[in-house]
Amino acid sequence: MKFGKVLVTGFEKSELSPSTLKQLNSLVQKVIFSSNPNTNDRKNTDCLLCKFNPVDKNTIDSLPNLKYIGVMSTGYAKVDTNYAKSKGIVVTNVPRYSAESVAEFVIAVILEHIRQLEKAKAQARKGNYSESGFSATEIKDKTFGILGLGRIGSRVAELALGFGANVCYWSRERKRVLEKKGIKFENADTLIPKCDFLSLHFALNKETENFLNKKRIAKVKKGAVVINTAPMELVDLDALETRLKAGDITFILDHSDEMSSANLKRLSKYKNCIIYPPIAYISKEAGQTKQEILIKNMENFLKGSPSNVVN
Amino acid sequence: MKFGKVLVTGFEKSELSPSTLKQLNSLVQKVIFSSNPNTNDRKNTDCLLCKFNPVDKNTIDSLPNLKYIGVMSTGYAKVDTNYAKSKGIVVTNVPRYSAESVAEFVIAVILEHIRQLEKAKAQARKGNYSESGFSATEIKDKTFGILGLGRIGSRVAELALGFGANVCYWSRERKRVLEKKGIKFENADTLIPKCDFLSLHFALNKETENFLNKKRIAKVKKGAVVINTAPMELVDLDALETRLKAGDITFILDHSDEMSSANLKRLSKYKNCIIYPPIAYISKEAGQTKQEILIKNMENFLKGSPSNVVN
Repeated sequence: MKFGKVLVTGFEKSELSPSTLKQLNSLVQKVIFSSNPNTNDRKNTDCLLCKFNPVDKNTIDSLPNLKYIGVMSTGYAKVDTNYAKSKGIVVTNVPRYSAESVAEFVIAVILEHIRQLEKAKAQARKGNYSESGFSATEIKDKTFGILGLGRIGSRVAELALGFGANVCYWSRERKRVLEKKGIKFENADTLIPKCDFLSLHFALNKETENFLNKKRIAKVKKGAVVINTAPMELVDLDALETRLKAGDITFILDHSDEMSSANLKRLSKYKNCIIYPPIAYISKEAGQTKQEILIKNMENFLKGSPSNVVN
Repeated sequence: MKFGKVLVTGFEKSELSPSTLKQLNSLVQKVIFSSNPNTNDRKNTDCLLCKFNPVDKNTIDSLPNLKYIGVMSTGYAKVDTNYAKSKGIVVTNVPRYSAESVAEFVIAVILEHIRQLEKAKAQARKGNYSESGFSATEIKDKTFGILGLGRIGSRVAELALGFGANVCYWSRERKRVLEKKGIKFENADTLIPKCDFLSLHFALNKETENFLNKKRIAKVKKGAVVINTAPMELVDLDALETRLKAGDITFILDHSDEMSSANLKRLSKYKNCIIYPPIAYISKEAGQTKQEILIKNMENFLKGSPSNVVN
């Protein structure tokens, strides 16, 4: 089984690796990237690949033979999955392709901060090679807490253990395999006040929304570094701002693209709030894994056992 | 046994932790920091503590009762150790107090570079939270080479292993304990061309001077990141410059304070040469360990079994 015509919108051909393109071509009769003028031949399109671009009712209606929408990202909020379902169209996404990339990023931003690397590079660039005034701490022997021990949280825990930190976690479910490696389970409310480093890895849902509430943020240890590579809805922003104003914690986040400009403005005032663009999930390796899952989803659909279906 | 009068020059009282000060006071009858006007009472001084400041013949001759010089650093080039010896004065230094700090720094500067953190922070600070244009790689599954598997090199090897890198090393002596953990021994000349990351950890001596010579630098893999937290005398600067000009490797160093301004000027022209002030060894933990060794050296001298004697 093969797809007939595949329409690719929302990303360029150049984004796909040679091996992905080869595999894609083996699964379809024809691939049209949206920049191609032939996209007006929409009636034979049975497969649509997209990324962050909207796929609404109109788009779906304009492709009368569509059977499959493959989203090349984890998020699929811009696809009208219900409408697709009502028309018998299967929508799949690409979950969990970037755990390693995010986990290494967490360690990266901690080290960048505690070793004052930005200041050091800038000073040296100006021709000043003095170490005077620099101070730093180590990860070793610090208490490193993980909230949410899923794929990313587990990997952060392992990396922190490699640095010789005392790693503890709270998660909805116990992870005995990791506990055997020396990662300790602890109630979130007794864990938070102990941590020198605290990394948030919950998926966002009703239970985890606002998890780092006023009471918990107030209990974060003085001098602690809190890292959130998960959605900022996990955190009570008013309480965070109060704590940032006190100046005794550092907060690092990378989901800035999902925040309102008003909220970004509030937080970016504080030197102890380090805001990154959403780059934790970005790495060549994660990009390749993502493409491999995209292709695997298409293969599985053609075989009649679709994977990563979201509608 | 106690020291009579201790003269401290080259560092301030405020640099010592409360616990170090307490221990110091228990070992001596009187401590004078050089900023104290009483330093003109030099004839009763039997112990001199110093750091990076010169202790030459004149200084030594001005302290007729001197028996012990404790240097609170690894380097002691500014102390006339031979003259001290000729007068029966024991000189001790503080070696190997910062292995953990340097090892974490090596991982820090690699991650800072491969995750483009400086660019990301600067861009976000300007209010641009787009991830467009960012690329990154991971440490996992890369080949990570260590040249010199002493205390620092060994710890870097362990950290890299924690990230899931393929870690290999060359060192004058085999380290079977680390090999059992999965770190592979390899001839330096077959190792160098394989490495995605290559970290130098030799002590500087006649054998290691210019170790990264023209032939070896030419063989460094395209795209590799070479990190040198050891003296730059290990590296042939002409050959390095040729390779930097080619633009296909990144070189990161932190012994900039020991380089001539002409050499710094040469290297700082290249964007792919990242120069840090000498901050790898700086951390609160390393600072505390250093003070503990300083005190231990004094205790051991008083007990008649001096440690870390350098003359």
